[in-house]
Amino acid sequence: MKLMSYLHAGLASYGAWTPAGIHDLGGQFRVTWPDLQAVIASDAALALARHHIEQGAKTYLDAADIVTLPLLSRPAKIFCIGVNYADHAQETQIAAAPHPTVFMRFADSQVGHGQPLVMPMESEQLDFEGEMAVVIGRGGRRIPREKAWEHVVGCACYNDASVRDWQFHSSQWGPGKNFHHTGAFGPWLVTRDEVDPSLKPLTLTTRLNGEVMQQASTEDMLFDVPALIAYCSTLLPLQPGDVIVTGTPAGVGMSRQPPLYLQAGDVVEVEITGLGCLRNTVVRG
Amino acid sequence: MKLMSYLHAGLASYGAWTPAGIHDLGGQFRVTWPDLQAVIASDAALALARHHIEQGAKTYLDAADIVTLPLLSRPAKIFCIGVNYADHAQETQIAAAPHPTVFMRFADSQVGHGQPLVMPMESEQLDFEGEMAVVIGRGGRRIPREKAWEHVVGCACYNDASVRDWQFHSSQWGPGKNFHHTGAFGPWLVTRDEVDPSLKPLTLTTRLNGEVMQQASTEDMLFDVPALIAYCSTLLPLQPGDVIVTGTPAGVGMSRQPPLYLQAGDVVEVEITGLGCLRNTVVRG
Repeated sequence: MKLMSYLHAGLASYGAWTPAGIHDLGGQFRVTWPDLQAVIASDAALALARHHIEQGAKTYLDAADIVTLPLLSRPAKIFCIGVNYADHAQETQIAAAPHPTVFMRFADSQVGHGQPLVMPMESEQLDFEGEMAVVIGRGGRRIPREKAWEHVVGCACYNDASVRDWQFHSSQWGPGKNFHHTGAFGPWLVTRDEVDPSLKPLTLTTRLNGEVMQQASTEDMLFDVPALIAYCSTLLPLQPGDVIVTGTPAGVGMSRQPPLYLQAGDVVEVEITGLGCLRNTVVRG
Repeated sequence: MKLMSYLHAGLASYGAWTPAGIHDLGGQFRVTWPDLQAVIASDAALALARHHIEQGAKTYLDAADIVTLPLLSRPAKIFCIGVNYADHAQETQIAAAPHPTVFMRFADSQVGHGQPLVMPMESEQLDFEGEMAVVIGRGGRRIPREKAWEHVVGCACYNDASVRDWQFHSSQWGPGKNFHHTGAFGPWLVTRDEVDPSLKPLTLTTRLNGEVMQQASTEDMLFDVPALIAYCSTLLPLQPGDVIVTGTPAGVGMSRQPPLYLQAGDVVEVEITGLGCLRNTVVRG
């Protein structure tokens, strides 16, 4: 399933992308499962959603009639992983550590597919970072690596867009990683029965105005998804809806000569094999 | 008012500490304001709470009959400030930056007053950090310094307890700052009509098994509360219930010779003039 969150006629809802159109699920499901985050926490809800989608809808929503929201609006935890590709570690001259480099994003900093990616008035240095996000469906603490994928409900594209001058205001990157409407997340959560990076590595491509800026395979991560889940779940229990954004490969704007920062009107796309294409246009805000 | 969150007879509730005992508010208020975070977002709720407390309760709860919860169970954002006292910057040899050093804590990492502060099985290096927390009552973006205190509903004690080896696993401190049941927050939120650090600096004292480990005045912060609110609210809109934990002064265990880490059975107290005493006992977990 390709699950998504959106506004339709002003109301928050969720559903599944299908070739016929968007199959709304929220209308029927909302009483029991108020949002997509509640659905992915429930095997019963996921099974029922699959059944509904297979049966088909009476009517489908048109993509033009919805406003796509961040895939999940209220993850309790968004772990972001830094320098998790060797080529990106090299281009940024940030030494890869013997443990995952983990920083945090607040859910409030996110933005949906197709919505404006905001370069704040305080900076001229908004930069893209195409990444694969994994979404936790089943919670747990101290999850062993060999069981880690069982806790993942699905994957999605993420643009961990970063305000570089604020990222390096101090030793801690959080400020540059938490500006409003910079963490693009979507368009869909693709459930693991459809696309499973543990079985076949995926290709991640970031494009700026159509030109390829980053391209890598998810198998090139320094710490793979099981290692990241094991590490993050050691800190505290993972909950359904928690997100791990697994790091960006080489090619970011700040490491180019000369540096290439985003401008108003730029279109950034993060596309991952089977996970769709996350597209946002940059605005000043 | 001294507002607190707790379990009573197994049910999450909230109320006010008074000399006569704990005046439960949740029983009457819960239908409209499900938790303390909803109360502090509403001027009407705060006024009604004040009125109820002045009228007195028929019965008061006994502190022995409640389990104190973290003051707020679901802050959308907990900003923690590093090296915000000159003496602590010196003892840790971490250069004070020209901007606030901001890292994040997830709400899941918190623990209430009187509850066990957990040293995880993965480390022998749990350390205390006594701090003052300010709680946002009125949200806003790009809040100017001169208006900042108007957005603060009150203050509380915080122990930003840190797992030092995990804090320094990489350049980013998040992992060491987010272990389960390490962020102690309480016992009360003292509203600004009672204690206002903008009018009179407060004295912060951290004790380990009764011995003073840290002592400082809140006026010694390198970036004061208005500067922190202005900075954090530049990133993204602050919401009611968001928390800024304002940094720790000198005296932490890791900077002592030899280093002094917490042990099971240790009692850590963070006391701030007028804000009460936050007490936790260390356990292995």
